[in-house]
Amino acid sequence: MGSEHTAKAFDTDLQELTRLVAEMGGIAERMIVDSVDALIRRDVALGQRVVTIDADLDALQKKIEERAVLTIARRQPMAVDLREIVGAMRVATDLERIGDLAKNMGKRVAALETDFHPLKLFRGLEHMTDLVQQQVKSVLDAYAAHDLPAAMAVWKGDEEVDAICTSLFRELLTYMMEDPRNISFCIHLMFCAKNIERIGDHATNIAETVFYMIEGQAITDKRPKGDMTTFATTVPNT
Amino acid sequence: MGSEHTAKAFDTDLQELTRLVAEMGGIAERMIVDSVDALIRRDVALGQRVVTIDADLDALQKKIEERAVLTIARRQPMAVDLREIVGAMRVATDLERIGDLAKNMGKRVAALETDFHPLKLFRGLEHMTDLVQQQVKSVLDAYAAHDLPAAMAVWKGDEEVDAICTSLFRELLTYMMEDPRNISFCIHLMFCAKNIERIGDHATNIAETVFYMIEGQAITDKRPKGDMTTFATTVPNT
Repeated sequence: MGSEHTAKAFDTDLQELTRLVAEMGGIAERMIVDSVDALIRRDVALGQRVVTIDADLDALQKKIEERAVLTIARRQPMAVDLREIVGAMRVATDLERIGDLAKNMGKRVAALETDFHPLKLFRGLEHMTDLVQQQVKSVLDAYAAHDLPAAMAVWKGDEEVDAICTSLFRELLTYMMEDPRNISFCIHLMFCAKNIERIGDHATNIAETVFYMIEGQAITDKRPKGDMTTFATTVPNT
Repeated sequence: MGSEHTAKAFDTDLQELTRLVAEMGGIAERMIVDSVDALIRRDVALGQRVVTIDADLDALQKKIEERAVLTIARRQPMAVDLREIVGAMRVATDLERIGDLAKNMGKRVAALETDFHPLKLFRGLEHMTDLVQQQVKSVLDAYAAHDLPAAMAVWKGDEEVDAICTSLFRELLTYMMEDPRNISFCIHLMFCAKNIERIGDHATNIAETVFYMIEGQAITDKRPKGDMTTFATTVPNT
């Protein structure tokens, strides 16, 4: 009866943790979309709202960490149960970082005061964001459903995001070469593109956490890497 | 006797955790210095070594998390003891991120194939790196010694780093405006400067963890922020 009670208490704790992670996920997804929307529509107020809301995400992460630690101390879970708790902590850490990256984009909205706005550039950023937001959504669903194949699909999909980021960087470089007045604006977009690419990396981290939770070990395959922005030296001639 | 045994076992666990965090700290500090050295001396092999060593840091972080969780489950520590364990996990997370940022700089070394190398630019980067490396060193010492005033000094010192980063960004912008052939090189340096600035942010995170460990609550003051790179729209005339 005692151990049955403990098992039930553990389940309740775990459900609460999972609920908090889902809450964080909802906020983080919203922040991604809103920060890029704010950039494209130059909506400074919306950008500021993303900056403000990040504090909620930070508070939730601390709360999850606190509850997870208490659950471990009180219920002394073993094996798969323990991995569930550690998994919740890890996912919360990645979501907190996603929030930081979106917040950084939100801050940049106020800086984009220029009339130079080639639609094509924003399309690239939007396309990247759609993909990454879908990756984040899919991996959070996979986490909630303990769906390993779905998590692995996200893990593999990161390559496409990285490829788009590299091509966007090249395009931004050409605009900078063409006219120095575009430089400042393009740099902001580069940092934003890099932020979105990093959000994608966090989605793959979460996929690795799902793997660890289900399989009980770390993933050994090397993650596919399509991002070449750190290697891009040659600038297309314009 | 039983509780004395538990207390002793806990102390041993905690010492081991602290030792592992110190090991991570040593590696991370080395990576910061080496990555910037590699950039300045265009030492591709050294840059590659930084990239390679990052896997050690990741493995250590996972090991610390694992041991911390086991310690919590086995010893069921309370209050200050629990905060010590949570603190070790948090510091390990920040050190792991510092490693990622240094690794990103290491990757960029191979891309800096250009003859354009104004010494002044590198001096700015070096100066920032010296400061940040000192911040990381000081905060790790403060963590090891439970020295709250020392940790708070680091926390407040971040402002200077951010100010140097902003001024370096402005300088890089002028070089880009002057000659489009400098653009690609300067963008790499901007991303590196931003990485170093973020490493400084992680040093302040660690300072906050020291505060939490000692005071038992989160720091409430807003962190001083001198980094204006996300707001920099105006480019100095050249």
